[in-house]
Amino acid sequence: MLQLNETHDTSLTSWVDSANTPGCDFPIQNLPMAVFRRKHLNENFRAGVAIGDKVLDMAELAKLRLFDAEVNAAIQCCAGPTLNHYMALGQEHWSAVRLSLSRALRSGSALQPKIEPCLLDQSVVEFTVPCRIGDYTDFYSSIHHATNVGKLFRPDNPLLPNYKWIPIAYHGRSSSIEVSGVDVRRPCGQLKPADAKAPVFAPSKRVDYELEVGIYIGTGNSLGEPIPITQAEQHVFGFCLFNDWSARDIQPWEYVPLGPFLAKSFASTISPWIISAEALAPFRKPWTRDPDDPAPLSYLDDENMRQQGAFDIQLQVSLQTEAMRARGESAVVLGQSSFADSYWSVAQMIAHHSSNGCNLQPGDFFGSGTQSGADDSQLGSLLELSRGGQQAITLPNGETRCFLEDGDRVVMSGFCENENAVRIGFGQAQAALLPAEN
Amino acid sequence: MLQLNETHDTSLTSWVDSANTPGCDFPIQNLPMAVFRRKHLNENFRAGVAIGDKVLDMAELAKLRLFDAEVNAAIQCCAGPTLNHYMALGQEHWSAVRLSLSRALRSGSALQPKIEPCLLDQSVVEFTVPCRIGDYTDFYSSIHHATNVGKLFRPDNPLLPNYKWIPIAYHGRSSSIEVSGVDVRRPCGQLKPADAKAPVFAPSKRVDYELEVGIYIGTGNSLGEPIPITQAEQHVFGFCLFNDWSARDIQPWEYVPLGPFLAKSFASTISPWIISAEALAPFRKPWTRDPDDPAPLSYLDDENMRQQGAFDIQLQVSLQTEAMRARGESAVVLGQSSFADSYWSVAQMIAHHSSNGCNLQPGDFFGSGTQSGADDSQLGSLLELSRGGQQAITLPNGETRCFLEDGDRVVMSGFCENENAVRIGFGQAQAALLPAEN
Repeated sequence: MLQLNETHDTSLTSWVDSANTPGCDFPIQNLPMAVFRRKHLNENFRAGVAIGDKVLDMAELAKLRLFDAEVNAAIQCCAGPTLNHYMALGQEHWSAVRLSLSRALRSGSALQPKIEPCLLDQSVVEFTVPCRIGDYTDFYSSIHHATNVGKLFRPDNPLLPNYKWIPIAYHGRSSSIEVSGVDVRRPCGQLKPADAKAPVFAPSKRVDYELEVGIYIGTGNSLGEPIPITQAEQHVFGFCLFNDWSARDIQPWEYVPLGPFLAKSFASTISPWIISAEALAPFRKPWTRDPDDPAPLSYLDDENMRQQGAFDIQLQVSLQTEAMRARGESAVVLGQSSFADSYWSVAQMIAHHSSNGCNLQPGDFFGSGTQSGADDSQLGSLLELSRGGQQAITLPNGETRCFLEDGDRVVMSGFCENENAVRIGFGQAQAALLPAEN
Repeated sequence: MLQLNETHDTSLTSWVDSANTPGCDFPIQNLPMAVFRRKHLNENFRAGVAIGDKVLDMAELAKLRLFDAEVNAAIQCCAGPTLNHYMALGQEHWSAVRLSLSRALRSGSALQPKIEPCLLDQSVVEFTVPCRIGDYTDFYSSIHHATNVGKLFRPDNPLLPNYKWIPIAYHGRSSSIEVSGVDVRRPCGQLKPADAKAPVFAPSKRVDYELEVGIYIGTGNSLGEPIPITQAEQHVFGFCLFNDWSARDIQPWEYVPLGPFLAKSFASTISPWIISAEALAPFRKPWTRDPDDPAPLSYLDDENMRQQGAFDIQLQVSLQTEAMRARGESAVVLGQSSFADSYWSVAQMIAHHSSNGCNLQPGDFFGSGTQSGADDSQLGSLLELSRGGQQAITLPNGETRCFLEDGDRVVMSGFCENENAVRIGFGQAQAALLPAEN
């Protein structure tokens, strides 16, 4: 469990003025990392750290060798186009870099003149997937989402018997994970309405979003050596927003008996910035469970995890239709939920995933599964909002939606906020749905 | 479709004598590629080509620049520890290298004195996974296997309605794919007998093998741009043997609704040599389907595929128990099948996988799914042989098995053979089952 330290001090400000604006996603207490380059220059991608509306170019910073040898070496690992080597270094190194950057960027730092030339406006850069994602695993950790989806198929018995014992998950497709801003083409696939005799191959009519938290694995484990739950969080590099686009009409026909496949693999969208676990230390909550629910099996249970197992990340999904865009209207909020309501914790996901000896590797990625809350304003997918496509929702401009239409832009955002800490923002994961290929 | 050419000429022999031994896995008509290094020297891995009992060191060959510029450049791509760059070059380059090597290694070649120093005994080398496998997808392409497994759960209706329409598949775990010779630890997991009230976390009692063909993707496609079935085979780099180890008692409790996860992700074993699609050109067979079965949807259908869609790869799985090993007894054959009996072709797998726009990348890997035939000697898993663990099989030495015991070594082999061609061997994929971690 990462402790509060001087990097979380609420009185800290930065000499980068924009970082001190109330409500800013990237104050000096955040310091998330992404991989970026300047637009239109065809230059190499490298890591950067967000501070206010600037990005600190880690490849340029590495050249200056401003810190001690260990920190300089760690920053050198950020000069290339993927963060995998940096992710493999481990929490001690990530913390040392964070502390050095916090000190260097805070108001009054003597390093300001040297670091200022390493800053770029975020408006002039573009991002990419920040690491080589070896394997991507999607969990199903929101009991509200699992219940809502289960109700559509089994109204009297929505939750499957294994749900409260196993952090259910499946292997996802890593190649089609793209960064925010890369639009998504409506997929084609085999569709078979229940009453049809045969399937047809056609564009999906039920494209949906899923509001998820993304989790990057830092250090891995050796094949055959499970990660004990007591050590699980040490393996977490950080968090982002994640839209796991889904084709709801491809899924029911393909998914028995081996699970979702083409219904999911056409696209997933990540937000560019990785928020470190350390930045989220002030936003931990007890992991709770209904007393009537079974206690977790011992490999999934830990006293520290119970006390501070939940990350209270506030999530929001908004929609901007083409008509709204044409009239200059901004996106409308469709759902807001918190990762603190997840039935399974990140530590439990890691302990379970490796419990059979499966090896996690630096840069592996978990989706949390759609995060929905208990009430109608907290739903993380259109499938839930439209009750399986049976009840269209009406937008403020009068348009209706059961599922996404071509041109719809889905915008996810997230933040952590409480009275004892400075607000930490996640930025955005956004992309529009393009028409199907002819 | 790759045509027969001079590299397939049955009269060709090599100046490497061992390649000319009848029954040799690696005659000059084969020329498979692997990634290797000499044992005990901690040297770098690089690609090699098998010829008889030798391996041609492609990193050493690259230094000699014996061929035209294009072929030399392609060989240079084989000097590193992964084949991904070479895989990305495409069929034209792979064919040019194959032709150059065939000419250089055949009896009478003037290059013999220059190439001889690049040969090592296969007995002194060790292998590794030959490329960075980005994504691994496991299909379910044997209708016999699907029917046999379905019967265990639904005796009256074993085959699910989607089976004859969709090449069913799921995303697998790439990190735990290891090369032949790396033993496998028995996994622990949540086990819940149907009559138990709660699951327990314990070592799996039902570890099984699955006899599969592995397929490497060479060139990929861009996200959003499906690969038409007419072009699908151009994307195939080659084939290997594949053991998709499975924990049959973890699977039933975890797999609803999202499919197999920890039941599979603890280990998969590949054979080291990748047999090129071109080497298999003499072993193609028509792809056939029962006239009562539905015709494939048009995106899965192609006249060439029907005429020459099946790869007639003979597969065999053998078992050597610890007791057999102690007495010097060799492995006993448990099943033999042919990939030609697969219900779905490789071209159909590729066309389906990319039909939603999902991007395949160089080094991606497909498992064919367990290949079983119609009769009892053709079963590719113990689950099928033991009728779901209900009928133990008796080995020649009197031992019995429902599932694998600690110390059991599973050996898979494969070859292609017919009267018009020289036999092509696949080598072996073998590994033993180690006891569970305490």
